[in-house]
Amino acid sequence: MEIDIRLIPYPPPSNSLIHRTVVVIDVLRATSVIVYAISQGAVEILPVITVEEALDRAKEVPRGSAILGGERESKKIQGFDLGNSPKEYVAETLRGKKVILTTTNGTKAFHFVSAGKEIFVGSFLNLGAVAKKCLEFDHDLLIFPSGDEGNFSLEDTVCGGMLIERIMKREGKPIALTDASQCAHILYQRFEGNLIEAFNRSYHGKELIRRGFREDLDDCARIDITDIVPVFRDGVIKAN
Amino acid sequence: MEIDIRLIPYPPPSNSLIHRTVVVIDVLRATSVIVYAISQGAVEILPVITVEEALDRAKEVPRGSAILGGERESKKIQGFDLGNSPKEYVAETLRGKKVILTTTNGTKAFHFVSAGKEIFVGSFLNLGAVAKKCLEFDHDLLIFPSGDEGNFSLEDTVCGGMLIERIMKREGKPIALTDASQCAHILYQRFEGNLIEAFNRSYHGKELIRRGFREDLDDCARIDITDIVPVFRDGVIKAN
Repeated sequence: MEIDIRLIPYPPPSNSLIHRTVVVIDVLRATSVIVYAISQGAVEILPVITVEEALDRAKEVPRGSAILGGERESKKIQGFDLGNSPKEYVAETLRGKKVILTTTNGTKAFHFVSAGKEIFVGSFLNLGAVAKKCLEFDHDLLIFPSGDEGNFSLEDTVCGGMLIERIMKREGKPIALTDASQCAHILYQRFEGNLIEAFNRSYHGKELIRRGFREDLDDCARIDITDIVPVFRDGVIKAN
Repeated sequence: MEIDIRLIPYPPPSNSLIHRTVVVIDVLRATSVIVYAISQGAVEILPVITVEEALDRAKEVPRGSAILGGERESKKIQGFDLGNSPKEYVAETLRGKKVILTTTNGTKAFHFVSAGKEIFVGSFLNLGAVAKKCLEFDHDLLIFPSGDEGNFSLEDTVCGGMLIERIMKREGKPIALTDASQCAHILYQRFEGNLIEAFNRSYHGKELIRRGFREDLDDCARIDITDIVPVFRDGVIKAN
């Protein structure tokens, strides 16, 4: 198995993806929200790019069957039910419902990698389960951090590095690492045992603290709280 | 001062460069060759993108006044005088001459960042002098690793991280680091005192060893052997 990671969230050429597993990561906060929401009983998540598209899709489903969630500039969107904090996505609100989600970076990323052989949703919350799933499929792996408005994201790459660490620890066979995945692995080793330090040093982490979302950082730094590995397929994210 | 680093060698938007100092780095081997060649007395280096352009430019100058140098797939180009090993670029061959240079990654990078306010050539060979020069100019800084055929390069980024370390150590005022420049700085800290390990682990380092250029790795890992900071301006690289 070869593991690569796309350090800058430019869309990869589609033909480079068709034989590879892709793991999309947006630690702060889209993929943490998605993993948590599915673990709390949401039936599916529809990641859409624009607010308009989210509102349109909500009109297509029976009233009360869908929750509108997401953010712009980290804040809940006007007229939406939920923002982009994992703690909002609890069983009482979600059970049996569909979530239509639009965020600045994360929801876009899924569409960039839609040509992947299988596409998993990764976060610290489900990292061990994602590692296990990648090894079961045993394809070459591309980790795709959603980044920060087109830029490199420290916290997403640290999470990617932890996924690499977990896969290497579990796998008996040698794993080939590219320069980029070696970089992510070294970053993870630097912040191992202190993920919050990486969040506090990252641009997006600092922005969230400034805007009053410090608690979300703690929530998104919880490791292996669920075995759910959501799958993105045909435009929709489901439990499997 | 803010320091950013472009982890993937895509051309930055020109308007993002006009107020910034840019340092181009291609440790293995173009910028190491350029710095060494200028330190050995080459009058100027003309970085060109194609072999054809190199041959055309050679015809424009008086016979014997220019040296043709560079590589394709790491090897000397047919009909050229020199390859891409620093040790070939010695005073006896170069003094008073112009070098027309074309390499796979490095020479292209200069043209990507030609809108920079000032553009310096960086390598381990002249790193302390580059740090000093950046602080003298005191503009925001973009470090531009040439990468590896469009991909992230471990050794270039480690060199960028060492430049950040040197600037931070010299500067009294606080330096703002982006997520990307924090990443480069952490990578440098990982390989501090053992640059050759970074080269041995990198894709391009391994390729060079496989092709018989191991000695070049040692030559390119020498730190601060010259105070020359070559400048790229109007398509040409000169001592200042």
